[in-house]
Amino acid sequence: QRFADNKLGNGIRYTAKDSSFSTQINVRFQSRYSGLMNLENSNYTDNFLIRRYRIKFKGFLYDPSIQYKIELGLSNRDQGNFYNENNGAANIVLDAVLKWEFREGWELWAGQTKLPGNRERVISSGSMQFTERSELNAFYNLDRDMGLQLHHEHEMNGWIIREIGSISMGEGRNITASNVQGYGYTVRAEVLPFGKFQKKGDYFGGDLMREPKPKLSIGITYDFNDNNNRERGQLGRFLDTHVDISSIYADLMFKYHGFSIMSEYANRRLVNGAAFGQDEFGEQRYFYMGEAFNFSTGYLFKNKFEIAGRYVINRPERIDIAPDSEIVTLNLTKYISGHTLKLQSSASYINNHEEANELLFMCQAEIGF
Amino acid sequence: QRFADNKLGNGIRYTAKDSSFSTQINVRFQSRYSGLMNLENSNYTDNFLIRRYRIKFKGFLYDPSIQYKIELGLSNRDQGNFYNENNGAANIVLDAVLKWEFREGWELWAGQTKLPGNRERVISSGSMQFTERSELNAFYNLDRDMGLQLHHEHEMNGWIIREIGSISMGEGRNITASNVQGYGYTVRAEVLPFGKFQKKGDYFGGDLMREPKPKLSIGITYDFNDNNNRERGQLGRFLDTHVDISSIYADLMFKYHGFSIMSEYANRRLVNGAAFGQDEFGEQRYFYMGEAFNFSTGYLFKNKFEIAGRYVINRPERIDIAPDSEIVTLNLTKYISGHTLKLQSSASYINNHEEANELLFMCQAEIGF
Amino acid sequence: QRFADNKLGNGIRYTAKDSSFSTQINVRFQSRYSGLMNLENSNYTDNFLIRRYRIKFKGFLYDPSIQYKIELGLSNRDQGNFYNENNGAANIVLDAVLKWEFREGWELWAGQTKLPGNRERVISSGSMQFTERSELNAFYNLDRDMGLQLHHEHEMNGWIIREIGSISMGEGRNITASNVQGYGYTVRAEVLPFGKFQKKGDYFGGDLMREPKPKLSIGITYDFNDNNNRERGQLGRFLDTHVDISSIYADLMFKYHGFSIMSEYANRRLVNGAAFGQDEFGEQRYFYMGEAFNFSTGYLFKNKFEIAGRYVINRPERIDIAPDSEIVTLNLTKYISGHTLKLQSSASYINNHEEANELLFMCQAEIGF
Repeated sequence: QRFADNKLGNGIRYTAKDSSFSTQINVRFQSRYSGLMNLENSNYTDNFLIRRYRIKFKGFLYDPSIQYKIELGLSNRDQGNFYNENNGAANIVLDAVLKWEFREGWELWAGQTKLPGNRERVISSGSMQFTERSELNAFYNLDRDMGLQLHHEHEMNGWIIREIGSISMGEGRNITASNVQGYGYTVRAEVLPFGKFQKKGDYFGGDLMREPKPKLSIGITYDFNDNNNRERGQLGRFLDTHVDISSIYADLMFKYHGFSIMSEYANRRLVNGAAFGQDEFGEQRYFYMGEAFNFSTGYLFKNKFEIAGRYVINRPERIDIAPDSEIVTLNLTKYISGHTLKLQSSASYINNHEEANELLFMCQAEIGF
Repeated sequence: QRFADNKLGNGIRYTAKDSSFSTQINVRFQSRYSGLMNLENSNYTDNFLIRRYRIKFKGFLYDPSIQYKIELGLSNRDQGNFYNENNGAANIVLDAVLKWEFREGWELWAGQTKLPGNRERVISSGSMQFTERSELNAFYNLDRDMGLQLHHEHEMNGWIIREIGSISMGEGRNITASNVQGYGYTVRAEVLPFGKFQKKGDYFGGDLMREPKPKLSIGITYDFNDNNNRERGQLGRFLDTHVDISSIYADLMFKYHGFSIMSEYANRRLVNGAAFGQDEFGEQRYFYMGEAFNFSTGYLFKNKFEIAGRYVINRPERIDIAPDSEIVTLNLTKYISGHTLKLQSSASYINNHEEANELLFMCQAEIGF
Repeated sequence: QRFADNKLGNGIRYTAKDSSFSTQINVRFQSRYSGLMNLENSNYTDNFLIRRYRIKFKGFLYDPSIQYKIELGLSNRDQGNFYNENNGAANIVLDAVLKWEFREGWELWAGQTKLPGNRERVISSGSMQFTERSELNAFYNLDRDMGLQLHHEHEMNGWIIREIGSISMGEGRNITASNVQGYGYTVRAEVLPFGKFQKKGDYFGGDLMREPKPKLSIGITYDFNDNNNRERGQLGRFLDTHVDISSIYADLMFKYHGFSIMSEYANRRLVNGAAFGQDEFGEQRYFYMGEAFNFSTGYLFKNKFEIAGRYVINRPERIDIAPDSEIVTLNLTKYISGHTLKLQSSASYINNHEEANELLFMCQAEIGF
């Protein structure tokens, strides 16, 4: 056995003596204070909690081309909601996936992991530029699902191009109930016209590497969820109606000299127009439809302080399910040891068109190894 | 400290510098696709899930004669069902047992672990020859319980003989409620007329060792569950009636040159005849009685492919609780690295006497270290 | 990387090669048999369960002055109760706290951990002198909460003096709901007139170090819980009324030559007198008020057997919420390897003034590394 590259952020790394397997164990948690002020009546409610608590194992088995990743979510918020469809059990397992590089540039993934949806979602919650992902992500993300993904990466004239195709069960992670019919189908393409980001920087927030040359990634995803009965596809309550859902995502990431931009657009429609169903409590609820846009930019100073701003618009089809709103956020981060150990705080002004406007403060420590 | 024998399947092994304790950490999960076709109306329902996700610690403490084993089950299906009697909590703890070899050939076990019931149950879910255990096991197994077990092994004229006696609480694992009265009593004997199997092969599926000489183990278990109020003894819903349950199990395992046979018989009766009670939702349910038989055989080719077949009969006392059925299963396994990393698929024809017949397909990857 | 001080009780210790972080992993569980006899009608109920099952990580990150501690509770009893206010989720996360020694003798703690309440509570459940903590603790302890704590320790003329101040959310661990208003405020002072105990012996049960010189610690805590809606502050059901709670604790620990004394007093009052509210099931319940006292003493023989006795009085304000009682307990412990591996048994006589008296037996193994 041997231990290699042991430093903060790399977890406990271990390789068997005969190189028949390796593992890396990471543990991390987020302590978050958040306070919300209603600007109409000045009511203030707050909350201080362990927002996320994760244990992760990753490495290879048998052959370096067979990689695995397992992530557990143990905090109360990580465990998600409790439905008959997931055995009423604590949803502790986040990822449990095998990635087989069967040929250079080609990987087949099997198991439960994030779908290739919007970039903000695929970026780990431990590598966010802001204290939390945007409202676009909250209402439109594809989350995790159980299925197969085919990943391909190749180079053309200095451009890096990636194509991903996925077939999944369509109802999200840890479903123990049987599926009546209809899967989720996702395709995504990414173009990196100036080559790869350093240290996979297209999938973490902020330009921690201070890219010496401009780097850009543009991604587009189409998802068709056939015969689905959850409010938001892979997320939300289970309803007694089945619909076909069609979603489009486009996003970009740009980094240069400490300066970074990330922007996304999302659009979700039901193929046959608005529909509703009853949840397990007999409540009538609409499937969530609408569109959203976000734009964020930040600058990292050499002392590892970063200042960033974000603008988000959410236009739900029905304002009885989610507020038609614009949100502006200002965020300050001090990276003590990259994304592994950092302090963040943010202030957001939430302009709700039909309800009272709000101010949201957050202060967060990301802690782990 | 030292690390020894590090290879795939042995987990992360660790012994303290002063040899005051050791531990071995294993992590594994099963990804399973299963599809069920109703042969009357051709309805097809399917499911793809992380069926099991386990973390295991085992080793010794203080002295090599004091062994412990701890296993956690984290997937949604692993967590079992939620009852007041187990605090409504996620049943994460599977095993937590101390095994004290107080004299050569004698071990006292204390804590929570599997009872010495049918062989198929005691074989780890990570070492199964088929994608899943048989229906005999599903309806008749003794599962885990909290208690004391005395294990004795000795040799007589080349025969290995084992006797196991157990007293347990009788209502299964992780019960937090107090027990009104009455424990579970289990006795088991095993005879291995041709000596021990290699690498404890009487307790894993398939003849991975390709035994050069024939090996046979015959086991018989009797269980008496005094004053019990669960539908199936250690499993099922809690009812408001208490009954005495009497169960008999007989099983055998044979292996030779890659060829293997496993067969079991199970019979469960209530001492005072059929009885029912109300569960916590006020539903009236019968205690489960009946008998079942299974026979399976397989052959492992030298390229680590194995083909296996199984026949199961289940004869429940009341067909309103479980189907009177016969099941034939054909299973194909590719052992990539023994039971630690393998691919399995199976097809079963289910002949339900009173209901529509069914076809069940399963495809499964066992992944871990 | 390096491994150091590896012996039973110190877990698996690991320091990164570049000393950028360290971790110590401990795993432990308690197997407990308990039997309760009603002395009026001689009814006997019993229970054998995994009372606690814990995984703990602790160490430093980035700099030795930044310490973290994470503890998970996985047994069914560890997971506590399930309320909407904690997302109905399994309460697995016990501690998740960062401790920053920003100056010698000064530490700032941020996150979720035990409040500086009564000594018996702050002593780990793995380091108890008796099979279980006393009834004083059961009804009056401050438990864990999410917040900030400032710890100061200094010496004055050979006396060790500690001051602790804490601001916390006030409703206990793993609350995901927003807080309407009002935090918990705790201050504690400790005086050790004869200097420090060996190996932090003021915070474990029994004089395992056989202190060669007398050691004493006296502590006093005041807690004010502003605008709280749980029956017992950080614990109990959530009610629809908010009250202000005021609590006082005083305790002492004395050890000398294997002889030990621990005693505590607790008093909890609502600032505006008795109040009640409805819980989520519509049941009307009173907030818990009252006072309690305990006194325990023990002697550790050189063969690591310890005999200990405890006397507890509980005087609840309303006997419909908890019994007005006195309890006498006799406890015998065999420390096999300190608090890490030990066997304990106890017998308690419970004198309930308004209900039948009871006898409680417990037998427990503490197992871990």
